[in-house]
Amino acid sequence: MQIYDLIQKTRRLTPLTEREIQTLVEGFTRGEVPDYMMSAWLMAVCCQGLTTAETAALTQAMRDSGECLDLSSLGAPTVDKHSTGGIGDKTTIIVAPIVAACGGLVPKMSGRGLGYTGGTIDKFQSIPGFTVDLPHKAFMRILEEIGCCVIAQSGDLTPADKKMYALRNLTATVESIPLICSSIMCKKLALGADCILLDVKYGSGAFMKTSDEAAVLADLMVDVGKQAGRNCRALITDMNAPLGACVGNGLEVEEAIRILRGEVHGRLTELALSLAAQMLVMIGKGDIVECRQIAEDALTSGRALERLEAMITAQGGDASVTEDLSKMPHSPVQLTVRSPENGYITSIQSEEVGLASLGLGAGRTAAHQEIDPGAGVVFSRSVGDEAVKGEPLFTVYGRTEELCETAAKRIMDAITIEETPAEPVKLIYKIVE
Amino acid sequence: MQIYDLIQKTRRLTPLTEREIQTLVEGFTRGEVPDYMMSAWLMAVCCQGLTTAETAALTQAMRDSGECLDLSSLGAPTVDKHSTGGIGDKTTIIVAPIVAACGGLVPKMSGRGLGYTGGTIDKFQSIPGFTVDLPHKAFMRILEEIGCCVIAQSGDLTPADKKMYALRNLTATVESIPLICSSIMCKKLALGADCILLDVKYGSGAFMKTSDEAAVLADLMVDVGKQAGRNCRALITDMNAPLGACVGNGLEVEEAIRILRGEVHGRLTELALSLAAQMLVMIGKGDIVECRQIAEDALTSGRALERLEAMITAQGGDASVTEDLSKMPHSPVQLTVRSPENGYITSIQSEEVGLASLGLGAGRTAAHQEIDPGAGVVFSRSVGDEAVKGEPLFTVYGRTEELCETAAKRIMDAITIEETPAEPVKLIYKIVE
Repeated sequence: MQIYDLIQKTRRLTPLTEREIQTLVEGFTRGEVPDYMMSAWLMAVCCQGLTTAETAALTQAMRDSGECLDLSSLGAPTVDKHSTGGIGDKTTIIVAPIVAACGGLVPKMSGRGLGYTGGTIDKFQSIPGFTVDLPHKAFMRILEEIGCCVIAQSGDLTPADKKMYALRNLTATVESIPLICSSIMCKKLALGADCILLDVKYGSGAFMKTSDEAAVLADLMVDVGKQAGRNCRALITDMNAPLGACVGNGLEVEEAIRILRGEVHGRLTELALSLAAQMLVMIGKGDIVECRQIAEDALTSGRALERLEAMITAQGGDASVTEDLSKMPHSPVQLTVRSPENGYITSIQSEEVGLASLGLGAGRTAAHQEIDPGAGVVFSRSVGDEAVKGEPLFTVYGRTEELCETAAKRIMDAITIEETPAEPVKLIYKIVE
Repeated sequence: MQIYDLIQKTRRLTPLTEREIQTLVEGFTRGEVPDYMMSAWLMAVCCQGLTTAETAALTQAMRDSGECLDLSSLGAPTVDKHSTGGIGDKTTIIVAPIVAACGGLVPKMSGRGLGYTGGTIDKFQSIPGFTVDLPHKAFMRILEEIGCCVIAQSGDLTPADKKMYALRNLTATVESIPLICSSIMCKKLALGADCILLDVKYGSGAFMKTSDEAAVLADLMVDVGKQAGRNCRALITDMNAPLGACVGNGLEVEEAIRILRGEVHGRLTELALSLAAQMLVMIGKGDIVECRQIAEDALTSGRALERLEAMITAQGGDASVTEDLSKMPHSPVQLTVRSPENGYITSIQSEEVGLASLGLGAGRTAAHQEIDPGAGVVFSRSVGDEAVKGEPLFTVYGRTEELCETAAKRIMDAITIEETPAEPVKLIYKIVE
């Protein structure tokens, strides 16, 4: 089998067989298929697409390129949750403890953030002492004892994805639904959870700009998950405005803690409960109405917060942050921006907020870059709220006044205030099963 | 300017500027743009295309990647002729001496053949002693004295094309009209002839399978040539059946000599005279009717044959081959195949004849491979001719009986004999000016 022929087939829209895709992925992982051939194939995929069967085969070949975890020795059903990434998306910090408190096991292996969508790993690392680099044995033990554990992507899992992603990042072949799907799903499959819930985001701050695009990706991921024998579902959710009031690693952890304390309600809490309820349904805890109630009980009773505290302790972190949020990192300069007029906030462009936050040091523009865990923005008003002239709209946190001023200007420009409130956007656009 | 952005633009169908294309080509030639980025860009071009302006800029950037010849010191107008390649296409061997005999200068720099379409260089090299590796000074001198000279592609001209073609050949990015156009035209522009006549072939034995595809390529090449300030024309010609009776390097030279001796008439002679007449029109020798007459006179008077003999001598070859064809190489085994039935030959699939000829050793399957200059096939009957049971149809020449039998079978299968003759196919489909 010649790699040349496989590239030619994809370019000519002739589907590759499972065996052909395995040959390509195995050869590339071993370094036998040179980068210049792989990048040509990846560009052919970007331009011509892949069938669902090809995407499933690609995902499985990428899964099989490295180690796969075996979670079957754990005593309870496992359920993984993955978000395609958005601005202010800290749902994992809320959802994992809720599901753990209800008897589910939530194994979570996450990447570090790159660009303006923060990584879950970076958020947890803003908690003093918290470590995300644990051996698999410790990961399994914490999972079994506490019900949830969050660790960094291990190099032993899906090396093909690591290599392919690096090449895609250099060759403008990132934007491809089959390639995005296989990159996400191979890691989910290698991690080995019985159930996988996907939160596919669309809108200004998301990779998928429209709900239609998001639906195509969600359908494909659910298909690929099912073809690999997993129980797989997806929610398609709105990401036009930032999720919750806080954007920035430490600030987002604080907001999650406040929600688990029962202090904050709104779209973020609603999304977290919806995700938790779906996960509980998937692991057989009841129907959606029952599971929603179970999730709410776990939250309001404080049992979910206890799970988070136990997990923080188990992972070496200072769990007292949940009682004393001042122990979380905060950048030295804080700048509050007030409303220049009266009216209603009709939109906050989340991509702009993400980029402003990146500028504050809350995200990376290159791998291995240091980030500022205490940087970001806290909104005092959300979309739909009234803006009152002279009242605070948001506060930015940064290392210098200059950084804060630049970010504040960008965020202010991203906020639209109008005389009449806008029609609220549906939080959950669709559920794909 | 980031190469990443240029790849992304081409993938997203956003035209690149002239400067962006120069940056890409210069960077790649100097080794600063890695192969994996260039192959991604080439695949994006294959899938998404380029505009005519982009193709012209690409061609000129490739021309400027190396040395360019200056033919302006020569005392007469120069006219180059290029065929996109076909089975049995030996027109250059006939046309160059005709035009030279009429006062035109025909500078010809050619590649070695790869695959089943033979290279003009390989054909000339089958003449005992003939050298195609001449310094530019000798090339200019022979051109001035004799009117035509054929040398091998020099590494100093268009290094970008050499590097890009090698990469395209490994990454299934050969089939792209803008890339084919720029690869051909950059070499024509670097060689520097005032006029360029293109013979764009279509059909079974050609790269372009349909006349429509060939017309797209021809239009683009003529546009690109004109944008670079050259007088440029194209003929779109039929390549469904082999051109002439002989296929194979030495055998094709013999056929060309026979035509220049005035012994052979038919489609090949007709095409050679048409091409020569166009070239004479382009260098201002008169209108098409006058130039056709001038070309015929050069042929029938023997002046064209004299030019060929002078060129062979000047390039170190044994010019007595034109009087004694037995001095040309002939493979030891010859196998004649006779017609199994009575009827008319309605088609000879030229691609199959090319592949059979490749199998006999007349072509290369890899660069630097040795070829057998005496191998090939000589048809006794052409498309349109009557086939008489028991009479010879063709003779194959090869090194072993086994090689000859395999080729003979393949060629026999490529010939269709029917009860009634087929409608003749037009030789020249269209002229693009």
